[in-house]
Amino acid sequence: MSSTAEMLTTHPNNAGVDTSLLAETIEALNDCASTCTTCADACLSEDSVADLRACIRSDQDCADICATTAQVLARFTGDNAVVVKQQLTTCITACSSCAEECEAHADHHEHCRVCAEACRRCEKACAELLGALP
Amino acid sequence: MSSTAEMLTTHPNNAGVDTSLLAETIEALNDCASTCTTCADACLSEDSVADLRACIRSDQDCADICATTAQVLARFTGDNAVVVKQQLTTCITACSSCAEECEAHADHHEHCRVCAEACRRCEKACAELLGALP
Amino acid sequence: MSSTAEMLTTHPNNAGVDTSLLAETIEALNDCASTCTTCADACLSEDSVADLRACIRSDQDCADICATTAQVLARFTGDNAVVVKQQLTTCITACSSCAEECEAHADHHEHCRVCAEACRRCEKACAELLGALP
Amino acid sequence: MSSTAEMLTTHPNNAGVDTSLLAETIEALNDCASTCTTCADACLSEDSVADLRACIRSDQDCADICATTAQVLARFTGDNAVVVKQQLTTCITACSSCAEECEAHADHHEHCRVCAEACRRCEKACAELLGALP
Repeated sequence: MSSTAEMLTTHPNNAGVDTSLLAETIEALNDCASTCTTCADACLSEDSVADLRACIRSDQDCADICATTAQVLARFTGDNAVVVKQQLTTCITACSSCAEECEAHADHHEHCRVCAEACRRCEKACAELLGALP
Repeated sequence: MSSTAEMLTTHPNNAGVDTSLLAETIEALNDCASTCTTCADACLSEDSVADLRACIRSDQDCADICATTAQVLARFTGDNAVVVKQQLTTCITACSSCAEECEAHADHHEHCRVCAEACRRCEKACAELLGALP
Repeated sequence: MSSTAEMLTTHPNNAGVDTSLLAETIEALNDCASTCTTCADACLSEDSVADLRACIRSDQDCADICATTAQVLARFTGDNAVVVKQQLTTCITACSSCAEECEAHADHHEHCRVCAEACRRCEKACAELLGALP
Repeated sequence: MSSTAEMLTTHPNNAGVDTSLLAETIEALNDCASTCTTCADACLSEDSVADLRACIRSDQDCADICATTAQVLARFTGDNAVVVKQQLTTCITACSSCAEECEAHADHHEHCRVCAEACRRCEKACAELLGALP
């Protein structure tokens, strides 16, 4: 078990959410953020970098948005539900948009295949959490 | 003129947005992010910290969301307009929600008064930019 | 295997570092960042919040510094080794300082115990990576 | 006056630092972070992107490190001086390294000229603050 998961069980407040679902989402967000940052850098290293500009940009936006969504969720105590839900919704769009972009290059670049999978997994985790919020 | 404003005029791409409007929004976001972080810390220093928990949390969420929105806008070239618009919309909600929370304490805490103003200014800048996007 | 770990094996460049060591460090940093953010929020929820101010602040600094160190490492291709090494060194100090602070409250607050462990694990991972860099 | 500067004068604690010097540094950091992010994106848009890889990477590292340093300073109350000083030192290295990289392209790319200036200004502000810390 990650510290993130163990930690959430010790928080005195409870946002009315299953803490293991919350922990899984935070972990998927962190994994997606790091994966997207590496994918952007891997695209930049390719000979065909000039064809990968849109992919690099969507990787970078997705990385920043996932990292912030993870931070917001890590202090979620139910108070600020409207903001949390909107940030989750934006993050789902960012993940879906980045996955689509990476899927278009997945046959040529293994890093885009891995990144698309991380984005789809994160998109799914965020959608599940959003559905479970009171 | 800030480097942010000068820089945006040199970018080879153009997102179809007035660069001075874009620069003003990024500057308002950065100013709001730092102001919210300091407000959270100032609240934490108050004797009445126990009454300021919701304020601290909305400051922190607003700071993180503004900082990420600034990053996303600083690389905005028109490609990723759907994600940019959603992130701006989420940021408007975060600023408005934090302003409302801080306004409730503005009579007792000068830092909450200053923070509420920064949030309202940022909310307005984001709304204006959102309205100007193609 | 996380996407972060799989992704690093697909990067066309190689920073001259074992990719599994790099992946483990990024994962420890992300886990520590989220854990520290939750610990700060859990401290804020405690009745004794007024006694936990220094702990909250070191949690927040550690969270921000770990998150940035993870980003910098996720695009590490060997080019920028001086900056990477200094950021890792700063991160080791932040983790060690936060661990020390949380250890002082570990008997009273389970979240501080969990957080101290995450910080020590992250400190160790960063030190190991730093030692392995060319 | 920015909200950041006004805000710092209202903080109940005092880190033993001149608040206007602290505010100027935070503003220089935010301006440098956004400028570097835009410079990386502008480099990515150039026909000669393949020659600008190292520049893009140092822009991105500098942006992330400046943004985090701004956050850490915005909650600086003197408690955590060792971490703050190390983070400032790392940030000075990141700014200096990015300035050097951008200066090498300043004759060909106006965005690199503007970015180099922002990095040098930020480097100087951080060094001045570091020198003034107790």
